[in-house]
Amino acid sequence: MRSERERIAAIAELAVGIGANVQPDQVLTVSAELGQEAIARAVAEAAYRRGALFVDVSYYDPHIKHARLRHARRETLGYVPPWIGERILAIGEAGAARVSFQGPLEPHLFDDIDPELLGLDLLPRTRESITVTAKEQTNWSILPFPNRDWAVLVHPDLAPEDAHELLWQQIERILRLDEPDPVAAWEARIAQLESVSGRLDALALDRLHYHGPGTDLTVGLLPGSRWISGRMRSIHGIDFVANLPTEETFTAPDPLRVDGVVTATKPLLVPGTAPVEGLRVRFEHGRAVQIDADAGAEILRSMTARDEGAARLGEVALVDRESRIGQSGSVFYSILLDENAASHLALGNAYPFSVHAGPDRDRANVSAIHVDFMVGSDEVDVTGVTRDGAEVPLLRGGAWVI
Amino acid sequence: MRSERERIAAIAELAVGIGANVQPDQVLTVSAELGQEAIARAVAEAAYRRGALFVDVSYYDPHIKHARLRHARRETLGYVPPWIGERILAIGEAGAARVSFQGPLEPHLFDDIDPELLGLDLLPRTRESITVTAKEQTNWSILPFPNRDWAVLVHPDLAPEDAHELLWQQIERILRLDEPDPVAAWEARIAQLESVSGRLDALALDRLHYHGPGTDLTVGLLPGSRWISGRMRSIHGIDFVANLPTEETFTAPDPLRVDGVVTATKPLLVPGTAPVEGLRVRFEHGRAVQIDADAGAEILRSMTARDEGAARLGEVALVDRESRIGQSGSVFYSILLDENAASHLALGNAYPFSVHAGPDRDRANVSAIHVDFMVGSDEVDVTGVTRDGAEVPLLRGGAWVI
Repeated sequence: MRSERERIAAIAELAVGIGANVQPDQVLTVSAELGQEAIARAVAEAAYRRGALFVDVSYYDPHIKHARLRHARRETLGYVPPWIGERILAIGEAGAARVSFQGPLEPHLFDDIDPELLGLDLLPRTRESITVTAKEQTNWSILPFPNRDWAVLVHPDLAPEDAHELLWQQIERILRLDEPDPVAAWEARIAQLESVSGRLDALALDRLHYHGPGTDLTVGLLPGSRWISGRMRSIHGIDFVANLPTEETFTAPDPLRVDGVVTATKPLLVPGTAPVEGLRVRFEHGRAVQIDADAGAEILRSMTARDEGAARLGEVALVDRESRIGQSGSVFYSILLDENAASHLALGNAYPFSVHAGPDRDRANVSAIHVDFMVGSDEVDVTGVTRDGAEVPLLRGGAWVI
Repeated sequence: MRSERERIAAIAELAVGIGANVQPDQVLTVSAELGQEAIARAVAEAAYRRGALFVDVSYYDPHIKHARLRHARRETLGYVPPWIGERILAIGEAGAARVSFQGPLEPHLFDDIDPELLGLDLLPRTRESITVTAKEQTNWSILPFPNRDWAVLVHPDLAPEDAHELLWQQIERILRLDEPDPVAAWEARIAQLESVSGRLDALALDRLHYHGPGTDLTVGLLPGSRWISGRMRSIHGIDFVANLPTEETFTAPDPLRVDGVVTATKPLLVPGTAPVEGLRVRFEHGRAVQIDADAGAEILRSMTARDEGAARLGEVALVDRESRIGQSGSVFYSILLDENAASHLALGNAYPFSVHAGPDRDRANVSAIHVDFMVGSDEVDVTGVTRDGAEVPLLRGGAWVI
């Protein structure tokens, strides 16, 4: 068995290698949370070994946000000092690389905070970060990194030590680090996903229809909607894999043509808050007009009230059952993993590059938020409808049928 | 005895209260190092309770710098991404408050790094930070915060637990937290120091002369040199105490008129490096032309070669034996404490506000560095010489005699 140091170094190599693809003489920024020091340091070492010019690590401390939500005046909670966004824009202008890690830390820290307040302070997420990503200025990657709190959340019936070890093994398998050549394994999976994306693009679908338990939803697509998977390219010509793992093909829907009801198939974790369980959303003419849940609906209601686009869809993503996350059978309470376990939708901002350049790109949704929620399972059929009304089965029993 | 939480909260109250004097609706930035999370969080809570608009905490991780010094190319070590300095300037322009903490963490981390390389990467210190301080744009304060590594460094003969407890008790005494009313105690000491500063200003000295074991040094003053102690005022009219503890009165010398030899009376700690022990510096016409030490001379030689002003003096500070740091008898390996134990000099940048506004201010020293080293003890006499050549004893046996 590999030592903990070797395990961490293997994730770091994926992050700066096939993930963000950090270039010689490039600056790399690392966004980490307290508790992720070990991976941040391993990434810095790996990046400097590859010839990075500078590695700028920033650590987010959720306790500082907690103190704010406890003691600051409500009307100040939307304030963000200008230098936080300016830094992100400068990183984009400089064409730096970006790496960050997911995996909930201290998942119960905000349990004593009114969920509605949590919707007012979106940090560490920033509007500028969405802008920089949309402009494709940087090569970036998000990866999971195990921690003990997270392991206990995923495997509450195990002793913390055992839960931690099991989560490590699951994440190593999900990251294909159990393969003799993890990079080659990722190249093969990405090629497969790109082939599916090509076939979906060739169908020139007008809309998707989802049908399953508690779900009967139609999602319109734009004529310019473009299916994207796996690898992207920055405007500086640097290829990168934005999410590791990546198991999806996604595009931007028509934010005005979403109708029906959809029931989430996994809990939704808004960073820093309790999971939203049993989410049900009803759409009319593209707007989420009713949001219910068994627990946590308020936080999502608050977030979708933030701006006009926050209650409309910005992303539609399809995932087959070959996903190793889906195969694991675990719920990870991490968007990065859970969204790659199942087909999903996102409320809020669209990635502009998921619409072909042209007038359609301005029709994609715009918002300060981007919140993914899982709607796919083996029981949810997804069917495409072409512009001339022909129905094309896409996913049946969780498997691709095109 | 107070709980650890109460002890930490007491330091936080000093920091945001009499120290930085954080105002309602003001933004506060906190610069902390990993290992200082507890005090950063207590400061955030105290600041929000006082009505702060936002608390922006940034954590410095010396392991990232260590990875750089181990693996990055030498010629890149002076590079700093533009957004780091731009952030500091924006904080100054916004007139935010600033709080930071000292106390060496992981003091042996850089023992395997060539000291000469350490002089090339000055982060987390930035040129812009010196600019913002010099412009008096912000109300700020630096305080000590105990940690176990530091305690073991100061008290190597004790068990770590005992060393930690003793360091806590020493720092509580040094911060006058053992007084019934710590703020009143600080008001009294600051009034005393301001009285000394007033008398020194009234003498209108031409130069100082230091005489003691291994020291025979003359330090010229500018006609506009202004003695400052304790409390300062930002350009926004906010009073603050920049250092807690503060036991000194200081001014800017004439960077062209320093001659003779001076022997440091305490080890010099450059953050992130091994202490410089037994430092001896010879000055000619203001320049440090020879730097020797029993250990660590290279790092200081490297730093003083950085720019023209780096080998000249920017600060001269006098401290009497009433200092509780001096009374403790300990060497703290922390500039903040040790400089307040004894009279000291600083190579590098002058604080412009320590020269009265006017043409003399442009004669004060300018540099990217500011490195204090202690030259005072009960055995070092300090004498003032007026413009007409009269000698005025200032410190004898460590006590003020004016």
